[in-house]
Amino acid sequence: MDGVADRPSPKIKLMTPLQYAHKPSIDLLAAGGVTGIMDPVAPGIPVGSDTGHLALLGYDPHVYYTGRGPLEALGAGIDLQPMDIAFRCNFATVSDDWTVVDRRAGRISDEEAEQLSSVLVNLSNRLSLDAEVMFKHTVEHRGVLVLRGDNLSEKVSDVDPHKEGVKVQMPRPTDSSENARRTSEVLKEFLIKSKEILENHPINIERRKKGQKIANALLPRGAGRLPNLPLISERFGVKGAVVAGGAIYKGVCRAAGMDVINAPGATGTINTDLESKFRTAIDALNRYGFVLLHIKGTDSASHDKNPELKARFIEKVDMTLGKYLDKIPSDVIICLTGDHTTCSTVGEHRGDPVPILIHGQGVRIDEIDRFDEFACSKGGLGRIRGLDILNILFDLANITKMYGE
Amino acid sequence: MDGVADRPSPKIKLMTPLQYAHKPSIDLLAAGGVTGIMDPVAPGIPVGSDTGHLALLGYDPHVYYTGRGPLEALGAGIDLQPMDIAFRCNFATVSDDWTVVDRRAGRISDEEAEQLSSVLVNLSNRLSLDAEVMFKHTVEHRGVLVLRGDNLSEKVSDVDPHKEGVKVQMPRPTDSSENARRTSEVLKEFLIKSKEILENHPINIERRKKGQKIANALLPRGAGRLPNLPLISERFGVKGAVVAGGAIYKGVCRAAGMDVINAPGATGTINTDLESKFRTAIDALNRYGFVLLHIKGTDSASHDKNPELKARFIEKVDMTLGKYLDKIPSDVIICLTGDHTTCSTVGEHRGDPVPILIHGQGVRIDEIDRFDEFACSKGGLGRIRGLDILNILFDLANITKMYGE
Repeated sequence: MDGVADRPSPKIKLMTPLQYAHKPSIDLLAAGGVTGIMDPVAPGIPVGSDTGHLALLGYDPHVYYTGRGPLEALGAGIDLQPMDIAFRCNFATVSDDWTVVDRRAGRISDEEAEQLSSVLVNLSNRLSLDAEVMFKHTVEHRGVLVLRGDNLSEKVSDVDPHKEGVKVQMPRPTDSSENARRTSEVLKEFLIKSKEILENHPINIERRKKGQKIANALLPRGAGRLPNLPLISERFGVKGAVVAGGAIYKGVCRAAGMDVINAPGATGTINTDLESKFRTAIDALNRYGFVLLHIKGTDSASHDKNPELKARFIEKVDMTLGKYLDKIPSDVIICLTGDHTTCSTVGEHRGDPVPILIHGQGVRIDEIDRFDEFACSKGGLGRIRGLDILNILFDLANITKMYGE
Repeated sequence: MDGVADRPSPKIKLMTPLQYAHKPSIDLLAAGGVTGIMDPVAPGIPVGSDTGHLALLGYDPHVYYTGRGPLEALGAGIDLQPMDIAFRCNFATVSDDWTVVDRRAGRISDEEAEQLSSVLVNLSNRLSLDAEVMFKHTVEHRGVLVLRGDNLSEKVSDVDPHKEGVKVQMPRPTDSSENARRTSEVLKEFLIKSKEILENHPINIERRKKGQKIANALLPRGAGRLPNLPLISERFGVKGAVVAGGAIYKGVCRAAGMDVINAPGATGTINTDLESKFRTAIDALNRYGFVLLHIKGTDSASHDKNPELKARFIEKVDMTLGKYLDKIPSDVIICLTGDHTTCSTVGEHRGDPVPILIHGQGVRIDEIDRFDEFACSKGGLGRIRGLDILNILFDLANITKMYGE
């Protein structure tokens, strides 16, 4: 449950959403399992979705993280190659002199963004420089941009200024290499050409007529290459799968060699089809040794500073869990946790530890019978790190090989 | 107590052996000390005897571990030199074409193995290649093999195929160096010559007559060099000693610069003379600043999937401790723990944390009055690592020097 942990909020009687929510099925798992608190990377370090999920899968982001761009691209379904340079990218509204009017292009719809994307697909052929450019829309105003070719570099500056009312800086090389200079040139040419095309696209003509902001520019950021992760299958001899809505979660899991399973109706929002996700994940247990079920709504409610909504969403997850709990085979080790704390008061990821519970055969059951930040701090696992989780789970499943003789 | 920690077992009322055993003296130490749980290397990582004991003595095996061979050789009493290549070795039964019939040579007795060893001692002189070969029997069908000479390498493959019914692969170099090629040649010649000699040894002629399997081949594995450990005496300015039955425990301690003290009747099995070991260890406290008493029976019972026997053995240790507790000077810091969890259900080392207790002057006594996996998880030490133990003990004894000024 993304960002499930929180700080106490005056809006819900100085409790956290996990304390405030009525969640009998989750608490049943806690009562029959072992609990603890977990720092995704280290105490007090607030992590992003990318670094957090890398850590949860056992990859120290200080070693393996190469930026969000390539993980998003993988999650969007692009078969990223080791030499590709990937960026996250927004559709935005900019003025004639490239001043940012709206970083989200008036929050254009998925359908509009999808149609706008289609005209960008063949733009590579019209570039003077020899590189293939791929753009793929993900959700709302967001997408990924991938440069493919010889002699490219990830050492290029962010184009997205991350705020409005300022002028877009065209990409610049961030080191003195010829490859970085060349990559900046390719990207710049693509951005300028794509603006010309987007300005006159029927979707934007229509939006202009309606007085809506147009999506006439792409703002890439977070250039990076594919990270080189030891695969889950190599580390544990087991094939893994992920059920998730958002691209970044799928992307991290793909980078770890896991399969992405699409659950119908999984949107990565608070209105996702939880039943579909649970059914899909439980079914995947028949074919995979490890399944990660990612649920985003808890994080979204926290970013909206709505701890009450977060508690209600936790209750919805709990009800769904209750319905499917007896469908999970008894030899499965279940772990419930989050990738970070998201504080509903400030609406941001924070570095407080996250409660974790592990339930299954051989577990040293402790006396904790509630899953929240306070109760779990007294649990039998003590305080562990994100990097430890898969080692603990695969060891409980008697899969891990001994280190030494 | 080797492998003392466990998972709950249905054979003993869903308790662990430490919970099931009646152990008033150990629990008295817990009540008057501070407790916690300890991950030998890291949460969820199951360690072997070698890596586990390295970690318990403060040596990160990821940095210092060079294979079990050299540690076994040290433990067997060989004065291993830095350039020596050491192997673990089994007496085995092989057919004429070197197919493994029995990896343990019909479990030959210590006496038989000892006599067979004696004919291998002078075999070096008959080798065409210039290297000294030492073989030393340890227990039952086991021994250690050491190659000494210039230009040798540990980069040689295991000869022991680790299963029966398959042909032995003669040693091969595992890198492209001339030294590895040469080492493989020396080892191969030794193995072929030793088979000729063993086949016609009176012990084997006798065994053949009785219809028993003969010990006609040596199967080396785990080539390695002496690890380069900072000595206990250098780290803490104190001389250490070990009282143990098994070769590997003595070997790790010798590598750390500790003296090996042999207790009469210490066998490294469940029938060891515990009183002799306690007397020897307590006596050693008069001459050494640090004494490690290693007790193996707990681990053996777990490998035999016998949690009840493990509990009974813990009770035997407890009774012996009770008898000798008042012989331990009051200024001694006592620490009781294990090198890993051995799960009596699966009969394997597993990565769950191990309970630990520390008793002595200056210790911050907690409220825990039982020494087991569950109670100690609530102890005042929290969750620590194997690498921390000696630092904590020498600090409590006011021996450790300040880091910084």
